[in-house]
Amino acid sequence: MTSSDKPGNDADAPAEHTGVAARDWATASADPQYRAAVVDLLGALAYGELAAFERLAEDAKLAPTLADKAELAKMASAEFHHFERLRDRLAEIGEEPTAAMEPFVAAFAGFHKQTAPSDWLEGLVKAYVGDSIASDFYREVAARLDSDTRELVLAVLDDTGHAGFAVEKVRAAIDADPRVGGRLALWARRLMGEALSQSQRVVADRDALSTMLVGGVADGFDLAEVGRMFSRITEAHTKRMAALGLAA
Amino acid sequence: MTSSDKPGNDADAPAEHTGVAARDWATASADPQYRAAVVDLLGALAYGELAAFERLAEDAKLAPTLADKAELAKMASAEFHHFERLRDRLAEIGEEPTAAMEPFVAAFAGFHKQTAPSDWLEGLVKAYVGDSIASDFYREVAARLDSDTRELVLAVLDDTGHAGFAVEKVRAAIDADPRVGGRLALWARRLMGEALSQSQRVVADRDALSTMLVGGVADGFDLAEVGRMFSRITEAHTKRMAALGLAA
Repeated sequence: MTSSDKPGNDADAPAEHTGVAARDWATASADPQYRAAVVDLLGALAYGELAAFERLAEDAKLAPTLADKAELAKMASAEFHHFERLRDRLAEIGEEPTAAMEPFVAAFAGFHKQTAPSDWLEGLVKAYVGDSIASDFYREVAARLDSDTRELVLAVLDDTGHAGFAVEKVRAAIDADPRVGGRLALWARRLMGEALSQSQRVVADRDALSTMLVGGVADGFDLAEVGRMFSRITEAHTKRMAALGLAA
Repeated sequence: MTSSDKPGNDADAPAEHTGVAARDWATASADPQYRAAVVDLLGALAYGELAAFERLAEDAKLAPTLADKAELAKMASAEFHHFERLRDRLAEIGEEPTAAMEPFVAAFAGFHKQTAPSDWLEGLVKAYVGDSIASDFYREVAARLDSDTRELVLAVLDDTGHAGFAVEKVRAAIDADPRVGGRLALWARRLMGEALSQSQRVVADRDALSTMLVGGVADGFDLAEVGRMFSRITEAHTKRMAALGLAA
């Protein structure tokens, strides 16, 4: 592949677009299984953003200062706008957004229930971890999507990274009291473990979505590839935590 | 005054702009008392929006459906963007936003603590009442401000009214069970009573702000005018509640 036929709008995606990734939505969605997978994906992402909004807004209450509260509120508001874009896209393709989101309510509720931060620092680590995992997942999945859906997912991805401020705060807290690092490292592991456990539940329940996640309907199903995707995301998480001073 | 010298951007404000209202920020802020009053006002409005964001996001958890949750999250997000504009304006005029907001934290915390909704309908009525009172107050105060600050306040005002959806839901609930109306009417009275009580606390504490609210520094202080402003806002509230089927 030469640089001239490389897509310009997603430099991070694999260089070649084959199968579904080479088509637009109108063409790709003629396959009912692909269509079902994208509806699932948009529903899951939309509800994930709405749930993230709710939790970040809740965590903002733990903020020690008004400026910190405003930062968390800003992240929450950004998640809400992602939700709006994903919901509007569902409506645009003729799907009822609520119906598309419903299948994923239990998984996100389970995740947030198991990972309610007990203090401000746990909330910050969760915000950072959540933002980063979401970003990794969006990037992974983008390459498996038709060009129109990919454009939306990459646009939402472009607008993540609001949690950067959390890094500085967490580093400062660990510098001030190194024991904090041990506690937060355990917390970060628990977040990732719970995220994986809920994701596996979704993968088991939603056939069309899972099939797409492992390389697109056209390319066949490979469960091992789901495992590899989870491994890549976990590995990136571990590296980020180490950079933050939270060795696992 | 002829129509030709009527300001074009605030048709709802009184027709004549005298005193401070005829000046821009650069001129008006040379008066240290006026400057202090505007810093107080922007600080109070900014923190009010941030607190509203937090409470609406919290109330979104009570929503019976995902669509209702999204509506409340949308309002919360709109309040956050108002907060951003007001905070940015404080920074622009060289004030530390947090310091400007601090004096008003207790009043808003007191209000929200006394008026935590116990169910979804109480949350909706509170959202609607809060949005409407804020809108009335912005409109009242706009006429007393220099042209630059007025423009900001009117721009934020223009973007309120997200609570309209609440009206329909509350009406439907009262139609379905008229006893709900009695309970919500009491609730609306309590909301207004608590809002007035916290406002009076602020008026008593913040001299410069209170002086401005009653007609601008240049026009002299008149405590009775504060009372009349509160009366107008209360009266508008009572009319709205009656229209909603909540006779007091």
